[in-house]
Amino acid sequence: MFKTYKGLMIILDGLGDRGIPAFGGKTPLEVADTPNMDRLAQAGQCGLVDPLLPGLPVGTHTGIALLFGLTRKQTLKLARGPVEACGVGLTSDRDALYFRCNFATLEKSDGDYRIIDRRAGRIDHGTELLAAAIGRIDLGDGIVASLHPATQHRVVLQLQGKGLSAKIRNTDPGNHYHTLGLLPCLPDDPHNRKAARTAAAINRLIDQVYERLDGHEINRQRREQGLPPANGILCRSPGRLPKIKPLLQYLKLKAAVVSGERTVLGLGKLMGYSVYDNPAFRADKSTDLSTKIKVTEQALAEHDLVFLHIKATDLFSHDLDPAGKREMLMRIDDAIAPLINDDRVIAITADHSTDSNTGRHTGDPVPSLIYNPYGRVDRCESYSEQSCVSGGLGRIGSRELLLTLLDQMNSLENYRSRDRNFMF
Amino acid sequence: MFKTYKGLMIILDGLGDRGIPAFGGKTPLEVADTPNMDRLAQAGQCGLVDPLLPGLPVGTHTGIALLFGLTRKQTLKLARGPVEACGVGLTSDRDALYFRCNFATLEKSDGDYRIIDRRAGRIDHGTELLAAAIGRIDLGDGIVASLHPATQHRVVLQLQGKGLSAKIRNTDPGNHYHTLGLLPCLPDDPHNRKAARTAAAINRLIDQVYERLDGHEINRQRREQGLPPANGILCRSPGRLPKIKPLLQYLKLKAAVVSGERTVLGLGKLMGYSVYDNPAFRADKSTDLSTKIKVTEQALAEHDLVFLHIKATDLFSHDLDPAGKREMLMRIDDAIAPLINDDRVIAITADHSTDSNTGRHTGDPVPSLIYNPYGRVDRCESYSEQSCVSGGLGRIGSRELLLTLLDQMNSLENYRSRDRNFMF
Repeated sequence: MFKTYKGLMIILDGLGDRGIPAFGGKTPLEVADTPNMDRLAQAGQCGLVDPLLPGLPVGTHTGIALLFGLTRKQTLKLARGPVEACGVGLTSDRDALYFRCNFATLEKSDGDYRIIDRRAGRIDHGTELLAAAIGRIDLGDGIVASLHPATQHRVVLQLQGKGLSAKIRNTDPGNHYHTLGLLPCLPDDPHNRKAARTAAAINRLIDQVYERLDGHEINRQRREQGLPPANGILCRSPGRLPKIKPLLQYLKLKAAVVSGERTVLGLGKLMGYSVYDNPAFRADKSTDLSTKIKVTEQALAEHDLVFLHIKATDLFSHDLDPAGKREMLMRIDDAIAPLINDDRVIAITADHSTDSNTGRHTGDPVPSLIYNPYGRVDRCESYSEQSCVSGGLGRIGSRELLLTLLDQMNSLENYRSRDRNFMF
Repeated sequence: MFKTYKGLMIILDGLGDRGIPAFGGKTPLEVADTPNMDRLAQAGQCGLVDPLLPGLPVGTHTGIALLFGLTRKQTLKLARGPVEACGVGLTSDRDALYFRCNFATLEKSDGDYRIIDRRAGRIDHGTELLAAAIGRIDLGDGIVASLHPATQHRVVLQLQGKGLSAKIRNTDPGNHYHTLGLLPCLPDDPHNRKAARTAAAINRLIDQVYERLDGHEINRQRREQGLPPANGILCRSPGRLPKIKPLLQYLKLKAAVVSGERTVLGLGKLMGYSVYDNPAFRADKSTDLSTKIKVTEQALAEHDLVFLHIKATDLFSHDLDPAGKREMLMRIDDAIAPLINDDRVIAITADHSTDSNTGRHTGDPVPSLIYNPYGRVDRCESYSEQSCVSGGLGRIGSRELLLTLLDQMNSLENYRSRDRNFMF
């Protein structure tokens, strides 16, 4: 029998970037001094990785789902609501609908709601009390709702009852259309009875949430402090918990996720992976990298494959701070040095690219590398968008990058026709 | 009208490799001196070719099926049993089920079978007599079985009768699990009646084969010589002969296969290609290359496209002999020189990569080249894994390599919507 190797996939959220005028048209990764990543690039293979399609931007949950091993088909069906539900620990009720919601600041007049702030001033405490004030609302028609706060203004709505349907419209008009006001919840197809019933329940819920929260003590205090009250919710991306048996389960490989972000942790739970959270992992710019690296090393001792996710790179891009991103990349490069050794295969990649000029997720491919001590070596001398263009991996998909990593670990067997159910 | 060219695809089984420590981290192809292939690379285009998906290892039958022109969809459905059946000349009964089997050494106790040797010591003669001793076994329930020996211990089981189903489990526990003993044949779904009937017939067959073969003269002689008897069969990969009309038939092109391996010859027959076998083609390290080249030249005179398959490269990898693979590559390079001329388009590729460090088929892409005297020329100076990274073909699929070869031959017309049935 041959030797198999452990695998480590380091996911630097929103890593890929565009040319920054202040950097002479180079990207943050191109101007960052990253000797450890460059060493891996020299001794391994680089390439460009597309999440779904070349040119098509995706959200973190899509990019991560593909890297975690879902097929494109499985990923396309994945609603954000149930992913967030897993992130806050709602993993048992498979009949319920889960919505990804924001606490928001609404203003009611003549039965309509104006949206004053889509995120209620990014409210960062008191949401547990607001959710408790809602409790389990009986919406009639056998439907019961409850709210489950996540990070800041984010909150998961659980809708329980029989015959619910996710085929309804979002009440959140989205970032660029908030002046439209809160949208009434409508079924996609007015003849779909289940969807019509579900949409009507959501509309009743919106009224009841406003009634119970607008005068709540937390919101009285917020108004006193000049902060926008969290007196409403915006609902989007409903769905049920999907029944997923991902690739790694079929392969009987043990995987773990090290991350501070609820979406990523939720996806990890959905896949049946071990998840390592820690108060020191803040999924922000102040995240404690050295603890994260130590936890990753522990996780590697007990698992075949570990996904280490670092959020901060993406946040700097969203804040239009390419210099901050460059510095973060240098901190990360320094931090990962102890993880590099010849007993494991290491990949570095991202869920998607993010442009520090605009703060947009972009459809640019993600610069990626794989280092296998007994693998092929290409001619790349450093790790950057530019050098990855001529790398040995060529241009492949995110899920194919995972397959390649597993194959470098010697953990894949020849394809058999019965594998097609989970492979395609 | 424009001129069309003949095409030659040289398939070097398991050609692609990984970094070999004894070669300073280079691959056998990278260290082999191959002036003829390098000449083709200089005057043509190189690239990396993936059989099914980047990172996903495949067996020879999958890799060859794609190079022979099956779509991914057609390939995914292809069971190994009917491919082997074609290899031994069973091409007519479309209702029968065909299984890929091994003659094996079993030991019976209390009605269970222990597996002593999965390949009956790679038995290499006498299997025709053993199969004749079985003849056509009536298994009752209107089902009749017969055995058809292939190379060494390999044998095809033909199961004839009405209402059979291939949705049953293998009785072969596989290489790594042979200590489990022979598995009873079970239907995938116990409520599937046809599958349950078929599985029950296989279980009766296993008993009857053991009864007839354990005391057979051939096995008596083997025991005397200290060899393991071939007193049982392990069954896997059942299926019916697929109804395939491959690409080249639609294009009305005449193709031929030159090979010594039954799987490859079987696939050729399944596609409706001419097959050229010869006692000198041994599908092993001692294969007679010069005869193979002569036969290829003859085949080219009578066909539009010839597939020349050479097995030995793969065998050296499986035997963890990268130096032998390098030498074989140099012998092949020398042998193919007479095939090179400016009246034909030549491709060199493989069905998959094989790692000489581990003997594993890998999901690494296959270094490939296409030489067209009137085609594009990229900047590659040699033929190797590393140089193919920057080749003009980029990274494409096996079937797309065949399309590219046909197109270089000026043999493809513009896509029309009615082509989608055989093209995708």
